[in-house]
Parts: sequence; structure tokens; C-alpha cells
Amino acid sequence: MKRNERLVDFTNFLLNRPNRMLNLNEISKRYEVAKSSISEDLVFIKRVFEDQNIGIVETFPGSLGGVRFTPYISDEVSRDRALELAELLREENRILPGGYIYLSDILGHPANLKKIGQIIAHEYCDKQIDVVMTIATKGIPIAQSVAEILDVPFVIVRRDPKVTEGATLNVNYMSGSSSRVENMTLSKRSLSIGQSVLIVDDFMKGAGTINGMKSLVHEFDCFLSGVAVFLEGPFKGERLVDDYKSILKVDQIDVAQRTIEVELGNIFEEK
Amino acid sequence: MKRNERLVDFTNFLLNRPNRMLNLNEISKRYEVAKSSISEDLVFIKRVFEDQNIGIVETFPGSLGGVRFTPYISDEVSRDRALELAELLREENRILPGGYIYLSDILGHPANLKKIGQIIAHEYCDKQIDVVMTIATKGIPIAQSVAEILDVPFVIVRRDPKVTEGATLNVNYMSGSSSRVENMTLSKRSLSIGQSVLIVDDFMKGAGTINGMKSLVHEFDCFLSGVAVFLEGPFKGERLVDDYKSILKVDQIDVAQRTIEVELGNIFEEK
Repeated sequence: MKRNERLVDFTNFLLNRPNRMLNLNEISKRYEVAKSSISEDLVFIKRVFEDQNIGIVETFPGSLGGVRFTPYISDEVSRDRALELAELLREENRILPGGYIYLSDILGHPANLKKIGQIIAHEYCDKQIDVVMTIATKGIPIAQSVAEILDVPFVIVRRDPKVTEGATLNVNYMSGSSSRVENMTLSKRSLSIGQSVLIVDDFMKGAGTINGMKSLVHEFDCFLSGVAVFLEGPFKGERLVDDYKSILKVDQIDVAQRTIEVELGNIFEEK
Repeated sequence: MKRNERLVDFTNFLLNRPNRMLNLNEISKRYEVAKSSISEDLVFIKRVFEDQNIGIVETFPGSLGGVRFTPYISDEVSRDRALELAELLREENRILPGGYIYLSDILGHPANLKKIGQIIAHEYCDKQIDVVMTIATKGIPIAQSVAEILDVPFVIVRRDPKVTEGATLNVNYMSGSSSRVENMTLSKRSLSIGQSVLIVDDFMKGAGTINGMKSLVHEFDCFLSGVAVFLEGPFKGERLVDDYKSILKVDQIDVAQRTIEVELGNIFEEK
């Protein structure tokens, strides 16, 4: 394979192996060229990946020398993606009886899910994350999108145990909005002791569900790496969780006027 | 941008825009080079994408000339991916009480989901598909993976209507295994009249659920493009649906010996 073709293949090769340390000797064998040629290729790839907000390419010297591609977007791009998502939320036919917001179309579109995944992965890029956790149903596509970028598995908490899940660990939690006691369950073999867990969900109001997932993480003897939601809704009173990040925030829903006031979430606040 | 860098960027550009007709004039503007240079780039990209089972790159001549990248794997690669998934299924600790099979770990891993998505997308690459449909919960990651490759949205059928779905269309269906009448529901705004729908799910036994989704497609005045499941389980008697495709097939589950007999599904049968 000549350089031109190798660059095409190498680009695809890296894009498909995010967050992994790849051995330079093996890559040089793959392309049947000297390591120095591979290093030259990486100069081009690195520059383009950084300029185009694709990610960061790091090379590590030495006999066990390696290269690692980390998908990464800049703060600016992350904010732009969120503003694009906010535009979708402002569409007037989203408001449902009771002031609920219709999100299923947004969360059923791969391009939107990719943006959401990138923004969340961007926020946690310097944290250890072994697994992404969410609760059925609408959190699943978000968890999958984040997990794909981070190249880690995701686990799905359910409200009722199923025969297809084997032994489960169950916790009760207090719904933040209605103050009812509810149940959530996760297959016992989903997590191992000591794993670092990122919790994601589509929507948060009183944070009762998030709080339930936090206690599940605790009961599994795992660590919490963070909590990220796509949309933070209006809530009067104190939330059950305060250490969360949101991509977007709805301040007010005017059911009569059919308008939603959407702004950027606290993920974009100055740190 | 010099050719070396342009090839890196162009590769990423195409990979992120599957199944779309891209205008060559706009691409030539993007890179500030003549269309002839872009055409030369495409020769390299095309060759590598085909040799490496990334996909097919088609160019269309004329003043409105375009290029389209279709993710595509060969029959052989599709079969290899399925065999890799079959190996995972044969692990002995998968068998749960009642002869159920634990699948959540397989379906919670982005790499496996990508394989499943590629195999299904490969099967339907010459069919019109506007939207992918599945039922909560475990079908969702599969629907998302297929939808991502096909660059179309996916919709999630539920067993109970939710306040966050707005008006819904509900159908009753007969469970294939237990002969009970059940209910499934889909938000009315999920589908438009005349769309072509691909139904996917994780597991199929009597095909009652699949049959329910088929009647939903019908009630929405949509067309069925196909039905694909990850795993087809053993079933005595006649299934409610016979026009389905399966990636893998479980013939027998020996609960005492804790072994599963897995073979390739009918998606790999000679056509």
C-alpha cells in the first residue's frame, strides 16, 4: 500500500479504535513499512484531526511505542453542537399536555445522538470511566452514543426485574417530583467491584431517578465518575442530586403560548 | 491543505456521511482545489474502502456530479462477524433459570453492536429503508446501530403509553409463546404515511412481538422493508411471522449441561 492509500486506511483504522493504545510495531507490520514512515503519516493525521475537531492523536516513544486516538472536540464546537440541539427543542409542537416535552424524535436521530455523545464525552475526557449506566428507555440511546465514543460498555437499569437478566440487585428510591418510593434493578453481572461509572439520562427534574442510580453504583461497590443529562427541566425546591452536568436547560414551559425557554446547561459554565 | 492531509480529512468526511449524495463542487470548494484533484483522491479512497471492507464509494458524473459512500461489508466478512458473535453466545454462564439466555453484556458493547448493525445493514443494502423500528428495551441498541449505519432515524415501540410520547397509536397482539393478548404503542408522530420500515429486535421465539410491530407498521400506513433479529430461539409449532432474517440461531439449550447450540441464522442461507 502506497502512502496515499495508507493514509486513507490508517485514518479509518484509528477512527475505529478510539481511546486504545495501539502498538506502533504492529501498525508498521500491518502496512509493511518502517516505523519512521508510520510516524510521518501520523504527523499529517495528527494535524488534520486537531484542526478539524476530530480528536487528539498522541504518540508514545520507546520500543513499546504506541499511538492513541482520543475523540475530542473543542469547547467551542461542543457549545455549537448544544446550540444546534437547543434549536430543535424550541420547535413549538414539542409541548405535550401537562407541560411534558416530546424528545423521542431528537433522541431517535443518529446525528443528534452523536452530538450529545460528543458533548458528554468531551466533558469527561480526563476522568476514568469504565462503564456508562442509564435507565430504560430514553436514556439508552444516549448511553450507547457516549459508550461508543469512549469505547466502553454500557449497562441498562430497569424499573422491573426481567427473567432475561438473571440475578439482580434492586434498590428503592424516592421519586424527586412525586415523593413516591419506587424500585430499580440492575443485573448483578452488569458491573464488577471497583469500576468507575458515568451515569447518563435524557431528562432530569427532581433527580430522584439519578439518585436511585447513584445508590445502585454504591451498592455494586463501584465509583461514580459523574452524572450527565441531556435536558434539565424546571424544578422548584431542592434537587436530590446537585453534582450533575446538563447539556441544555429548560427554564420555563408556556403551555398556552406553546413556547419553551431553552438555554445552555451547566456543562458550559465557567470552571 | 496538501493532498496528504486532504486524504485524511476527506476519509473522515465520507465516513461521517454514509448513504448521502455529496456534491463534488462543494467538496472541491471545501478543499479549495480543482474537481480533478478530488476525483484523483477518490480513486485512492475507493480502492482502500473496497479492499478493507469499509464500503463502496460511487461517483456520479455531470455538472451536478456527486459522490456517495455506502458502508458495506462483504458476505465473507459478514459471516465472520456473526461467527465471532456466536462464540460469545456459547459461553456457558449465559444460561439462566428457565432456559433464558443472558444477552445484556453482548448488547451493551459498542463493538458487538457495530457488528450486528453491519450484518443487518449489509442484508438490506439494496432495499429502501426510511426508518428502523424496534421495541423497548433490548432491541434499542440494535436499532440505533443499524440506523447509524443507514443514516436514518429509529423509533421505539413501548408496551405502555407514556405521557412523554403524546398521542399514540396502540395495537393488540397475540404473544406467540404464551397466547396472551398484549398491547403495544407508538407515538403518533413517530412515522409518516408511506415510509419504509425495517423492524429489528434482539430475540425472537414465537414472533408475537414482531407480528405486533408488523401490524403497527400497517396501521401507520407504512411499508415493511424487512424483519431482522439478532437471535432466533428454538420454537415448536408455527411462528406468527415467517419472513424474517436472523443473524444467529439457537437450536437447543441444555440447562443441565449449561450448553447452547448456536449456528448461523437464515440471513446467511443461499439466496
